[in-house]
Amino acid sequence: MDEFELISRITHNTYNRKEVKVGVGDDAAIYSARTEFNEIVCVDTMVEGIHFLTHFSSPSEIGYKALAINISDIAAMGGIPKYYLVSLAIPSTWREEQIDEMYGGMKDLAKLYHMDLLGGDTVSTEDKLIITVTAIGEIEKGKACLRSYARPGDTVFVTGYLGSSAAGLSLLYKECKIESDALRQYFLQRHKKPVPRVDVGLICSRYGRVALNDISDGLSSELNEIAEASNVTIEINKEQLPVHPELKKLGSKWEEWVLFGGEDFELAGTIPHEVWDDFYKECEAAKIQVYPIGHVTKQGVSKVFLNENNHAEILGKKGYNHFKQR
Amino acid sequence: MDEFELISRITHNTYNRKEVKVGVGDDAAIYSARTEFNEIVCVDTMVEGIHFLTHFSSPSEIGYKALAINISDIAAMGGIPKYYLVSLAIPSTWREEQIDEMYGGMKDLAKLYHMDLLGGDTVSTEDKLIITVTAIGEIEKGKACLRSYARPGDTVFVTGYLGSSAAGLSLLYKECKIESDALRQYFLQRHKKPVPRVDVGLICSRYGRVALNDISDGLSSELNEIAEASNVTIEINKEQLPVHPELKKLGSKWEEWVLFGGEDFELAGTIPHEVWDDFYKECEAAKIQVYPIGHVTKQGVSKVFLNENNHAEILGKKGYNHFKQR
Repeated sequence: MDEFELISRITHNTYNRKEVKVGVGDDAAIYSARTEFNEIVCVDTMVEGIHFLTHFSSPSEIGYKALAINISDIAAMGGIPKYYLVSLAIPSTWREEQIDEMYGGMKDLAKLYHMDLLGGDTVSTEDKLIITVTAIGEIEKGKACLRSYARPGDTVFVTGYLGSSAAGLSLLYKECKIESDALRQYFLQRHKKPVPRVDVGLICSRYGRVALNDISDGLSSELNEIAEASNVTIEINKEQLPVHPELKKLGSKWEEWVLFGGEDFELAGTIPHEVWDDFYKECEAAKIQVYPIGHVTKQGVSKVFLNENNHAEILGKKGYNHFKQR
Repeated sequence: MDEFELISRITHNTYNRKEVKVGVGDDAAIYSARTEFNEIVCVDTMVEGIHFLTHFSSPSEIGYKALAINISDIAAMGGIPKYYLVSLAIPSTWREEQIDEMYGGMKDLAKLYHMDLLGGDTVSTEDKLIITVTAIGEIEKGKACLRSYARPGDTVFVTGYLGSSAAGLSLLYKECKIESDALRQYFLQRHKKPVPRVDVGLICSRYGRVALNDISDGLSSELNEIAEASNVTIEINKEQLPVHPELKKLGSKWEEWVLFGGEDFELAGTIPHEVWDDFYKECEAAKIQVYPIGHVTKQGVSKVFLNENNHAEILGKKGYNHFKQR
């Protein structure tokens, strides 16, 4: 398959962003940056058998998620996603239609954010499909939400239910079950098609000093990263952690999913206490639910504590269980 | 720059480019674009067993080349390379020191261009190592060298010897041999550590309407891409094609290497005839040899013709032979 044929089939050479000067089809793409903004860039790779399984997710869902996790990284800086590039290593076991569907899944998501595909590479490989997405966005100068911004007194918050993605994965593995098909679909979708929180990230960027991380590796891991980058102690309260009302019915692992499950792609962050009410109200007006879950308590000890019934324990940087570890 | 950006700059004070606001260590990197420039972006992937073999190239050479081929794409737009991101899919057969060496090979090359590593991803895979590099550069507004810029009357040129990389690969495969160790090293280096022609690209960008392509897939392929993008006919003369004086001694395949070999990462392009002399002299003054090899003859037929002894034949878009096809 010719890489330019493939990409030009997808792009049709029309671009959403007027700043695109040269799109797909030359040695590189060229775009014009807006003067009042800085550029944001990140890259993420998904490997078949490790980050996705073809019997769990369709090619379209795999493409969607590969782009979504990159958009989520831009959201976690408070930024606006604008462009993406895709590199695919394709084994011979994948058919051309499947690759088209994968690009289709990315394109559908990109459309929601007026993002343009600016290029990529397609190579053949012998074993597993590997998809690497580079995403480029922008952030108003001086408005980025950095991990190092947490200060004592800040409110710690998350932007949505935790553990839903891990519950969806557990359902796919038939480790648990659920009666309602609608609920089953909800949890599966949270795993297969997570929604990057660009909306909340943008609101955060207007509040000056907000530390943000997207929940890819699990709440505990993300909060530890903020604690380390800011050199602060974070305390969160177990009873404040937002979960779907039906999550607990999925079995005893729900607490683990909430703290360590990851891949919810909600945002976790800290915001100065004095602007919390305004922030909450602005989110509410935008029909976005945000949940306070604790506080930054002091400078100097980069740890996260989980409080439950007046007892505090250290929340370690425990990672996410990939497919291959099951 | 606000106070927090300053703090993050001081913590990561190893960046060459002062425009880096947030480097490695947050969800994404942030840099400031210069107002009089546009941004250039491209991505290229190399797969073990297809684009490189570990018994031919050291980890350092593999890293070098993965970055070099991306810098070459930026050079082929006339641009200045500035940043790169690296995604690695690593099988368990690779040791940590080898990965370090690979990064070292990239870092050494990046240093020459004052490029900064802005992020990346590392995942495990089961089979072959796959390295994907995203490169970001800049080009003065309106100065890019596009494939679509060729016009009848333009001089066609290349920036250095052709076929040297293919000769080096052939030596690695022991398909041919050479007495002189210095010459052997020259050809091997042209294959393993090609030098991206950022210098010539920059000069080209000052000549207004220069069509450029880097020679990754072979001269015939690159010129055909320019002919197609510009909808022109290109005629080149076999006796003008620059080759290393010793190339012909490496056997009968040398003509094939020159036309279809690829991976020389020289630049091939077209430039208005009336500025050729100035361009040639400017390159000469910069100790860069450029070689005229033909002309753009007419608008309307997107073909490349090779002239030899008053006989012209169509030069097809024949590709490069990867390792696995031997």
